[in-house]
Amino acid sequence: MKKILILGAGLSSSSLIKYLLDHSNQYDWKVRVGDMSLDVAKGKVDGHKNGEAIKFDVFDEQQRLEEIKNTDVVISMLPARFHFLVAEKCIEFEKHMITASYVSPEVKALDEEAKAKGLLLLNEIGVDPGIDHMSAMKVIDEIKAKGGELISFKSSTGGLIAPECDNNPWHYKFTWNPRNVVVAGQSVAQYIDHGKYKYVPYHQLFKRIEKMSVLDAGEFEMYPNRDSLSYRKTYGLENIPTLLRGTLRRPGYSEAWNVFVQLGATDDTYQIENSEKLTYREFINMFLPYDEQDTVEQKLCNYRSINMDSETMSRLKWLGIFEETKIGIPHATPAQILQKLLEEKWALGSEDKDMIAMQHQFDYKLNEKTKRITSSLVVIGKDQVHTAMSITVGIPVAIATKLFLTGVINQKGVIVPTMKDVYEPVLKELEEYGIVFVEEETELD
Amino acid sequence: MKKILILGAGLSSSSLIKYLLDHSNQYDWKVRVGDMSLDVAKGKVDGHKNGEAIKFDVFDEQQRLEEIKNTDVVISMLPARFHFLVAEKCIEFEKHMITASYVSPEVKALDEEAKAKGLLLLNEIGVDPGIDHMSAMKVIDEIKAKGGELISFKSSTGGLIAPECDNNPWHYKFTWNPRNVVVAGQSVAQYIDHGKYKYVPYHQLFKRIEKMSVLDAGEFEMYPNRDSLSYRKTYGLENIPTLLRGTLRRPGYSEAWNVFVQLGATDDTYQIENSEKLTYREFINMFLPYDEQDTVEQKLCNYRSINMDSETMSRLKWLGIFEETKIGIPHATPAQILQKLLEEKWALGSEDKDMIAMQHQFDYKLNEKTKRITSSLVVIGKDQVHTAMSITVGIPVAIATKLFLTGVINQKGVIVPTMKDVYEPVLKELEEYGIVFVEEETELD
Repeated sequence: MKKILILGAGLSSSSLIKYLLDHSNQYDWKVRVGDMSLDVAKGKVDGHKNGEAIKFDVFDEQQRLEEIKNTDVVISMLPARFHFLVAEKCIEFEKHMITASYVSPEVKALDEEAKAKGLLLLNEIGVDPGIDHMSAMKVIDEIKAKGGELISFKSSTGGLIAPECDNNPWHYKFTWNPRNVVVAGQSVAQYIDHGKYKYVPYHQLFKRIEKMSVLDAGEFEMYPNRDSLSYRKTYGLENIPTLLRGTLRRPGYSEAWNVFVQLGATDDTYQIENSEKLTYREFINMFLPYDEQDTVEQKLCNYRSINMDSETMSRLKWLGIFEETKIGIPHATPAQILQKLLEEKWALGSEDKDMIAMQHQFDYKLNEKTKRITSSLVVIGKDQVHTAMSITVGIPVAIATKLFLTGVINQKGVIVPTMKDVYEPVLKELEEYGIVFVEEETELD
Repeated sequence: MKKILILGAGLSSSSLIKYLLDHSNQYDWKVRVGDMSLDVAKGKVDGHKNGEAIKFDVFDEQQRLEEIKNTDVVISMLPARFHFLVAEKCIEFEKHMITASYVSPEVKALDEEAKAKGLLLLNEIGVDPGIDHMSAMKVIDEIKAKGGELISFKSSTGGLIAPECDNNPWHYKFTWNPRNVVVAGQSVAQYIDHGKYKYVPYHQLFKRIEKMSVLDAGEFEMYPNRDSLSYRKTYGLENIPTLLRGTLRRPGYSEAWNVFVQLGATDDTYQIENSEKLTYREFINMFLPYDEQDTVEQKLCNYRSINMDSETMSRLKWLGIFEETKIGIPHATPAQILQKLLEEKWALGSEDKDMIAMQHQFDYKLNEKTKRITSSLVVIGKDQVHTAMSITVGIPVAIATKLFLTGVINQKGVIVPTMKDVYEPVLKELEEYGIVFVEEETELD
C-alpha cells in the first residue's frame, strides 16, 4: 500500500483528489487530504474508504514533519510560497513531492540533494505551467527530430468564461484568484522578437496585444506575459529568434482594462484616504484632473481620448464605475477598490462554466520551406466543482503521481515536465479527460 | 568658544561652510568639517584658522560618538538616510542638530526626548524643504492675521540652468544628483483640488502639467510632486480645498521626458541582458514593437503619436538616442543607461551657472473678495562652487545655526521652520544673500 499526502484541498484540488480516490482501489493507495479547513478536506474526500481528511496548518512545524514522515509522496497544492517548507522536509525524510507551481530558486537549489537521495521533486505539472510545457515540448521535439529549425514560438493561455455562459460586455468572469487578475502584469514583460529583446512596461502592456483565434472558441487577444526569455532555456530553444508567451482575453478586454491601468486604478502600493466613505464615481474622479463643469464621464473620455458611445465606454459603464455606490472598505488601495467592484460584476453564476484556452504557434524551416504548426486546446468546465481550471491543473498532477507510483516515470531530482518520458505518457492519458490538442500545419510564404 | 561640527562637505555644503568660517571670529566659533574624503573637507576649510578638516566615516560608530561628544552643535549634510545615526547620538550626548533634509519618522520619534533634554533638532532648513516652508508660512500667517481665508495654495520649485547658460533644446542641465532626476516621480503624486483628492500615477505625471511664469526668468511648466496632502498639517491648512506642490521645468521638457517614461526607459527595477554590448539605438528599439521595415525613429513616432519634425523629436535626437554608440555598462537597468547618456549631454560646462526658481501662489477670500498673492524667488549661482543650489541649501542652515547659537532661536524638540520666531529672522538675513521673494497681489474674479 502506498500513501499519498495532498496538502491543500481548494478548488484546484477537486479533480486531482477525485482521480486519486477513483484509482485508489486498483493501485492500493491511501489518500490523506490536509487543509486549513477540515470541512473543506472532508468535502473533497466525501467519505471514500481509501481517503482521510485532516486539518493541516503549514505553519505547525511539528505537524508538517509528522505528516511528511508518514507518507510516500506529497502533493503540495498550497500557495506557491509554502512549497519550500514542504520540499525541505521531503528531502529530510526522503519523500517524493509533486506540485503544479513554478519552481522557486530555493526549491531548485535542492536538486543535487534530491538526486543523491533518489527523490523526485516534480514541479510545474498543472495547466500553465504544466500542460503548456508538455504540449509545447512534444511539438518542439517532433520538429527537431525531423531536422526542422524553429524560428518562432508563441504560446498563450487564458482562463475565461465558457462561450455559452458569456453574457457580459467584457466577456470575462473570475474563474481564478480575482486579486491576481487585478494586479496581473505589474512587472516588465520581456520577450525576444526577430532576434531583438523587447521590454514592455506595465502601462504599455494592454496596448501591445496580438489578435488570434482558437479552434471554434472564437476570437481572442493576447498580451505578453512577464518573462518569456527564461523559456528559451526551459525548452532548449537558446537561439530561437522569436519567443513570446502571453495571456488570452476576449477582443476589447485589453482596451477597456487599459483605462484602469492608465488611470492608476490597479495600483496596489498605497492606500486611499477615507476610502470607506467614497463612492465608485468619486474613486474614478480621483484619477482625473479637476474641471469646473465637465462630468466624470466627460472628463474620462477627454483624458483617455475615447468616445462616449464607444464599446470601451459601455464596458466601463456596465461595471458601475460612474455610480454613486459606497465602496465601504477602509484603508483600501486602488486595486482593492477595483477588485471589490469587479467581484460583484464578474462573479460566476451558479450555472456558469469556465473555459481554458491555450494555443502554441511554432514556425520552423525545413528543406527550404517555412511552415507553421498551430497546436490548440479548449477545455470547458463540467460544473462549479470540476471546473476547466480544476481539471487542467489537477488531472496532470494526478496522472503524474500515478505514473510515478507505478514506475512509468523514473526521473529524479527537481524537474519540470519537459522530458519525453514524462510528457508523453501524461499527454496520452490527458486525452481520456478531454484534454486534447488539435494540431494544424500550414506552409508560410 | 562654541564648537560646530559639520558632517558632509559636498557641493551643497560650500556656502554653508564659508558662511560659518566668515563669521567665526565675530562669534568665537570653531568649525570642524568631516567628510569621507579628507581632501574635500580640507578644500572647503581652505586653511581658515578657525576651521579644521577631518576624515569622517559615518559607519565608524566610535568616531561618530567621539566627534558628537566633543562639539556643541552638529550640522548633518550627510545623505538623508544617515541623519538618524547622528540624531540618536546627539540625543545621547545632549547636543543640538541642524539639517536641510526631510524629517524621517525615526528622527521625529526623538521629539519628546529632545524636548525633555532641552535640545533643538531643526530639520528641513535648506531650500526645498526649507526656504519653501519659511517663505510660504510668512504669507500664510499674514493672510490669516488679517482675517483672510486661504482657498488655494500651489507651490513649485525647480533647480535649473541659468538663462544665460541655457544652450540646449531641453533647457535643462544636471545641477543636482542625476539619478534623482532620472527616477523623479516614481511613486504616486497626491494632492487636493477644489476639495477632491487627486492621485496621479507615474506614467501620467508628465502629462499633468501646469504652465506658469516666474518673474523675469520666463516660462515654466510644473508637474505635481509626490505627497502634497501631508503639507496641509505642516502649514496649518487642514481644511484648504486646493493644495498642490510641484517641480518646475522649462516648457517642452515634460512632453519629451514623457517619451522615456512611456517607453519604460526610466525603469530602475530590472537589468537589461547584455547591456554592455548594446548601442543607445538598440536600447530605444527594445521598447518598440518589431516592424519589418520601419526605422527606430519611425517606430517611435508611430508608437507615441509624435511628428518626426516636432520639437519633442528634435530634443530626443539631440540626446543621441538614435545613434549607434555603445552603452558600455554591464548589468544596467534602463534608468542607469539613460542616466549615462544624459550625464554626457546635460553636463554643466565649466562656466555654467545654475538657477533656483520658486513660486508660491496663494488664493484667499477677505471681505467678499478673492485675491491672489504670488511670491516668487529666482537665485542664480555665483560660480561652480557657490551654486544657486549650494547657496539656497547652505545659507539658511548657516543662518539658523548662528541664530540658535546667539540665542535668537529658542525652539526645542524636533522641528521644521514653520514658526514665526524661526522663519522671520532667517528670511530677513537671507535677503542679504540675494534670496529675496517678490510678492505681487491681484484681485481675482
